[in-house]
Amino acid sequence: MGCPADQTLFPSRLPPGPRNAITDVAGVAVGHCTLDRGDLQTGVTAVLPHGGNLFREKVPAGCAVFNGFGKTMGLMQLAELGTLETPIVLTNTLSAGTAYTALVRRALEENPSIGVTTGTVNPLVCECNDGQLNDIRSLPITEDHVFQALAAAAPGFAEGAVGAGRGMVCYGCKGGIGTASRLAELPGQAFTVGALVLTNYGRAGDLRLLGRPLAPQGEVTPDRGSVITLLATDAPLSARQLDRLSRRAIAGLCRSGSIIGSGSGELAVSFSTACRVPHAGDALFLDLRVLHEDYMDTLFAAAAEAVEDAVYSSLLHAETVTGVRGTTVASLREKLADE
Amino acid sequence: MGCPADQTLFPSRLPPGPRNAITDVAGVAVGHCTLDRGDLQTGVTAVLPHGGNLFREKVPAGCAVFNGFGKTMGLMQLAELGTLETPIVLTNTLSAGTAYTALVRRALEENPSIGVTTGTVNPLVCECNDGQLNDIRSLPITEDHVFQALAAAAPGFAEGAVGAGRGMVCYGCKGGIGTASRLAELPGQAFTVGALVLTNYGRAGDLRLLGRPLAPQGEVTPDRGSVITLLATDAPLSARQLDRLSRRAIAGLCRSGSIIGSGSGELAVSFSTACRVPHAGDALFLDLRVLHEDYMDTLFAAAAEAVEDAVYSSLLHAETVTGVRGTTVASLREKLADE
Amino acid sequence: MGCPADQTLFPSRLPPGPRNAITDVAGVAVGHCTLDRGDLQTGVTAVLPHGGNLFREKVPAGCAVFNGFGKTMGLMQLAELGTLETPIVLTNTLSAGTAYTALVRRALEENPSIGVTTGTVNPLVCECNDGQLNDIRSLPITEDHVFQALAAAAPGFAEGAVGAGRGMVCYGCKGGIGTASRLAELPGQAFTVGALVLTNYGRAGDLRLLGRPLAPQGEVTPDRGSVITLLATDAPLSARQLDRLSRRAIAGLCRSGSIIGSGSGELAVSFSTACRVPHAGDALFLDLRVLHEDYMDTLFAAAAEAVEDAVYSSLLHAETVTGVRGTTVASLREKLADE
Amino acid sequence: MGCPADQTLFPSRLPPGPRNAITDVAGVAVGHCTLDRGDLQTGVTAVLPHGGNLFREKVPAGCAVFNGFGKTMGLMQLAELGTLETPIVLTNTLSAGTAYTALVRRALEENPSIGVTTGTVNPLVCECNDGQLNDIRSLPITEDHVFQALAAAAPGFAEGAVGAGRGMVCYGCKGGIGTASRLAELPGQAFTVGALVLTNYGRAGDLRLLGRPLAPQGEVTPDRGSVITLLATDAPLSARQLDRLSRRAIAGLCRSGSIIGSGSGELAVSFSTACRVPHAGDALFLDLRVLHEDYMDTLFAAAAEAVEDAVYSSLLHAETVTGVRGTTVASLREKLADE
Repeated sequence: MGCPADQTLFPSRLPPGPRNAITDVAGVAVGHCTLDRGDLQTGVTAVLPHGGNLFREKVPAGCAVFNGFGKTMGLMQLAELGTLETPIVLTNTLSAGTAYTALVRRALEENPSIGVTTGTVNPLVCECNDGQLNDIRSLPITEDHVFQALAAAAPGFAEGAVGAGRGMVCYGCKGGIGTASRLAELPGQAFTVGALVLTNYGRAGDLRLLGRPLAPQGEVTPDRGSVITLLATDAPLSARQLDRLSRRAIAGLCRSGSIIGSGSGELAVSFSTACRVPHAGDALFLDLRVLHEDYMDTLFAAAAEAVEDAVYSSLLHAETVTGVRGTTVASLREKLADE
Repeated sequence: MGCPADQTLFPSRLPPGPRNAITDVAGVAVGHCTLDRGDLQTGVTAVLPHGGNLFREKVPAGCAVFNGFGKTMGLMQLAELGTLETPIVLTNTLSAGTAYTALVRRALEENPSIGVTTGTVNPLVCECNDGQLNDIRSLPITEDHVFQALAAAAPGFAEGAVGAGRGMVCYGCKGGIGTASRLAELPGQAFTVGALVLTNYGRAGDLRLLGRPLAPQGEVTPDRGSVITLLATDAPLSARQLDRLSRRAIAGLCRSGSIIGSGSGELAVSFSTACRVPHAGDALFLDLRVLHEDYMDTLFAAAAEAVEDAVYSSLLHAETVTGVRGTTVASLREKLADE
Repeated sequence: MGCPADQTLFPSRLPPGPRNAITDVAGVAVGHCTLDRGDLQTGVTAVLPHGGNLFREKVPAGCAVFNGFGKTMGLMQLAELGTLETPIVLTNTLSAGTAYTALVRRALEENPSIGVTTGTVNPLVCECNDGQLNDIRSLPITEDHVFQALAAAAPGFAEGAVGAGRGMVCYGCKGGIGTASRLAELPGQAFTVGALVLTNYGRAGDLRLLGRPLAPQGEVTPDRGSVITLLATDAPLSARQLDRLSRRAIAGLCRSGSIIGSGSGELAVSFSTACRVPHAGDALFLDLRVLHEDYMDTLFAAAAEAVEDAVYSSLLHAETVTGVRGTTVASLREKLADE
Repeated sequence: MGCPADQTLFPSRLPPGPRNAITDVAGVAVGHCTLDRGDLQTGVTAVLPHGGNLFREKVPAGCAVFNGFGKTMGLMQLAELGTLETPIVLTNTLSAGTAYTALVRRALEENPSIGVTTGTVNPLVCECNDGQLNDIRSLPITEDHVFQALAAAAPGFAEGAVGAGRGMVCYGCKGGIGTASRLAELPGQAFTVGALVLTNYGRAGDLRLLGRPLAPQGEVTPDRGSVITLLATDAPLSARQLDRLSRRAIAGLCRSGSIIGSGSGELAVSFSTACRVPHAGDALFLDLRVLHEDYMDTLFAAAAEAVEDAVYSSLLHAETVTGVRGTTVASLREKLADE
């Protein structure tokens, strides 16, 4: 995963993890369900911070919204309480409600107390509009597709035009799912920062590969997509620090060419696997270990580099796709070969 | 609607509109779909800013989040772009995904270009947890219930244990839907501010009626609910000013006794009917008339008073309801009569 | 301090601390420097979270802005890093720059490394406009006045028309400094929440004493002031939780009658004395104990009650003052006696 | 100004204005006061949106905080009200209080009603820590220096190690003041977006010139500085849209290599010269023309490009400086020549 070692697209300062994937953060799993049938070019991708009951054992989480043109669900409570209590599900915009219901149903099954003796659950659903290649108006995603993606979650997973990334378009090329990771060496201890992106953003012609615009750049087309960035780390960060980490995702996106388009929903969600926050306050206190602020920069650099790498990886892994209305979006590899 | 004139609960500085309801703002309509069948005590309430195609003719909108424990959908984009482009649907927490899908489907029907030649749509769905009286785990709300509430929208509408308010509990009494309005007299011109609340918040014993705690107060019970406040006005306000107006909702809530409980999602959404923002940029510019900031205070006072009145109105209109697990929540009237 | 026991203005649910003051939180000290010379009716109030070197040993801190009409300095970094690293200084609006410089100078004296081997310091200065009674245009506050207030800091301190409160006006009455505290009994352990307010807000006629409007209310005058709320607690709260606590100050303000006027800067800053955050990252980690979210409500209620009590206390302690342009603002006691 | 035409560092999509400077936006003026005396290597830079009385005729303004490690004053009210009412003053961190007082004094002189019949004034002061080259602890900036910078304001102005930029360090090279502009061609009308940056950020070795890391990169040093970005435009944008424009500054900063370091205050302030907002509400309404959201992308691209160009320009114009403790920071040109 990630950009193959022999195709590293920029001289990275920090080494990638063994998989160069978000799943280099131990316990994290990713699964896809892909719909690839004529006009339907869409899907679901699920990211699980750990294999346990997330509602009972939440993980610290943070977020950042760079451009709020989007329908992501769950950020308000995540920002308020600083925890994530469901898997993160990515899908197409108009199917976000279905994904919400699926996550609700899963949480109800796992937790008989929800809605009876305890409160409700806050599903996290992120989305991009794949209407350029997918018949998004037919609302093809079902709750079962979500369950399939959740069931498929594993440390190893495909990138490119798969899962939620099936119908996505990025910088005028075929986009989709990309991932990468970086190791942050701190005094006496190393941590991993992993990124997963769903790339559906960027004006054709704005892509900067190797830090440089591609030539010939062709016409600039409007940016009508979005990009979702997920960051995972095993570093012990507080919710406030995870908000800060999330904000560094924009460095990776902008280096690849984003102007954070008006219609491009750009946001990031981060979580830490270093501790678990119990749902119930059986104990009055939580004893937390958090990183001293002086050591954040190496993690920030890791996040920026991992996101930039993950964007390129999404482009390099995505194959050419033909979808609704006979539209074909060529892969970056194909475009580069044509030049 | 609103508190009956002979039961005005506080010496209001500003006069109410003719209905003492959010629908005193011309063009606004409200509709309910109520489920009242044994364990199912829930429903849907829809608020329409105008009778046209909201996606094509958006209204300026703003919001404020006082406590982000909640699953409301649509605020991120509303805050970014300052517009509302669907009706506002209120329902129970776990059914929010279904309401989202229903609003998507309605927008698709009205707008064949969505997902083809234009982008997607941003449904606004607000929710509270009615699990104390309703079998919320059974996910009883269907898309059809949402369509029924939308179809029922009219200037006249019921308050209390109806629509989304059917199963709600407020300050240990039966809560639900409440509404009120106030007239703001500015030099040479008067404007209306209307409020609609979905009350499901407040610790039993914290209610301040007539500004004073009720006696006997009994035990303080945890605040596990939420309260949604919608504000409508015909004053020409920008999105930024509507954010400011939204923030004044908290004055009404706190005067009635709210401590903004940790588990109580408290937020407000405001919109203005004074202008419409076209979806498509056929023209380069919008020519907008907005109120000078010096005149906001009368509107702020109107919002605070209307929200406080609407809260009391929700309590005074709500009947005693028996629901899931045989739970009965008595109305405020019944409780007052018992003393 | 606080409202005298025999004049408790509302049936409080939670008991006050021994002083009914912010200094019931152990280690907190407050000092005033008052200018009371003809046209000059102004001053400085300093609040110290602890008696040590705050730059070296910061305290966790949070904040909330209800209405950002104001010139408070230091909130941006406080919100980013979640720490407070200087005393909090309150003074009149136009003298905030001088107070900033004074806090800088104090930090430089105590910390030879600032600006050499370490970074800079973030002074926290809050302000209200006392121009109704004070010749604010003459910029009468000097750095020395700030140093005097800092030097005077002690657990016992005066309320009313003293320090920064000397020239303030609240609900058309003489306002100023008020304080109160509440005890929050949690399972096995009790914590204190203390409030200090600088009251310069509220339209004459809007004051609700005993939860009820005063009669006769007279004319409503514009709200041109502001109110600063400081909250201290010995409960172990994270910066995120202190942001949440800060937001509950608005409950106390609104219960007393605030509509959060357009020109009224209303904000709150909270800090916890339960731990200290070292400036330098000599150790990679901080080991923190924080309260489980399930126990926040009692602290929230304590904050709401303490702020409401502190507002009344500021009004009850403030004497009638005559200042610039011969303006006299009568005390609440005098106004009540006149009726 | 800006990067000389023959040294354009990246293939810009959009043409620069005639000066390639923020002053390509008609009416904007910039002035410096530079202290260059041994240990004192610091100064003041003033940016005036127009030549009139800014308090009486405010300009619409917005802002974005990417990393709130900083002491910038005035953003809270700017964000609340969406207007700028003083010139913007840039200086070193510890002198920000003095700059505040100077801006207060200037506004008092121009407006006898401030603090008497009208409210106070909200100075906007931005700062970076120049302690690496400047004896910042001596607080050398006086109010008179601020007045000198204001008096020197003109359409033509120097870049590099001048004004507030005198002692700044960027990516391990000498930084300072940089500027650039871009023309945004919209249907039937062209607008200008101008940027001015105060560059004091970036880890040595992270600079990407021509989009590529410089080689040899040397050791990564901590990022202890900050960067202030100011954007001016003659496009008719609302405060909300100017918030959005401000957020695009980060694209330019990150393309040049920023990871938005933990100790690097990074923020942007934008204003529009297309209309003026009167201080007093003599009229009930403002009639505003604003751009339709569909046309923002070209302005966003212009902002991203102008900021990136301005960063490079600050580096290319800054000369080598020797300051406090005998420290010398070499210019980028010198460093490139050495390779």
